[in-house]
This record gives sequence, structure tokens and C-alpha cells, in this order.
Amino acid sequence: DGDINAGAQKSAACTACHGAQGKSSVPLYPNLAGQNAAYLNHALQAYKKGERSGGQAEVMKAFVAGLSDEDMADVSAYYGSLKP
Amino acid sequence: DGDINAGAQKSAACTACHGAQGKSSVPLYPNLAGQNAAYLNHALQAYKKGERSGGQAEVMKAFVAGLSDEDMADVSAYYGSLKP
Repeated sequence: DGDINAGAQKSAACTACHGAQGKSSVPLYPNLAGQNAAYLNHALQAYKKGERSGGQAEVMKAFVAGLSDEDMADVSAYYGSLKP
Repeated sequence: DGDINAGAQKSAACTACHGAQGKSSVPLYPNLAGQNAAYLNHALQAYKKGERSGGQAEVMKAFVAGLSDEDMADVSAYYGSLKP
């Protein structure tokens, strides 16, 4: 399982689109706050494996390219811990 | 934009995995309650266009195959309207 505090420190790049507290300011982008951490981790892994295309998938692929499995688990734990 | 009440009536098939009120009982599946409706609609369209694979994507593709653009907008409006 991911580390919430480590995830908070690794989440800076996420905030531009997904909001400072995981509440997106852009309706087309998903809120992350309070989402199931296991699902968030799955989604990040899916981007990394090239299983998603269209929309902002290319942007997400670029971001996750620099993330390790641990990084993705940590960030997922962090957003899952936030109040929706 | 979708019709919340119509979406509620069309959401029966979603509840098995995403919960009666859009809160998933399975951590690997996403909560839908309070998610941005525009994002939910985008995600449904992405499944329909074959832009997502892996995980439960095949299950989602099977479900959305029977949904019109209006159906997807309605269901998205409904889940977006629920308390997260």
C-alpha cells in the first residue's frame, strides 16, 4: 500500500489539473479526493501501460512515465485519503 | 447536458459494481458519486470508442454498447449529482 505522506509530497504535478485538494477546477477532469486508492493506482498503471487513449491520456502518459510503482501507490494513497 | 432523473432510472446496471449510491463496495472500482459529470461522460464515451483496455474495460465496453449518447449523458448527470 502507498504512503500518504510521501504521496502528498509527490503530488505537486497533479494539482494543476486535479486541484490543490484533489477537486478539479475543470469539469472534464476527474476529482481525485476520496476516490478509492486501489482504483487510482489501477488508473495510473493503465496510463503507463498504454491502456488509455483519447482525451488527456497523452498528458497523463507523460506524467506517469516519470513515476515508479511506489510513486503511483503513494500518490493514490494520498488522494484516496482526502475528503471528497 | 444530461437529465438527472432519467439517469437515475437508467443506472440500475451500474449499481452492482459502483454501489447503490455511486460508492463502490470494491476498492478497485471507482466511486462515481459527486464525480464531475463531464468527466464521467467522457469516460463512458472513451469505453464506447475503445479507448480503454485492461482491468474491467471489457465489462464497461459491454455495458456502454447498449447506451446512447443521451443515456450516457443522463447517467453521468445522475452520478455527478450524488453526494460523494
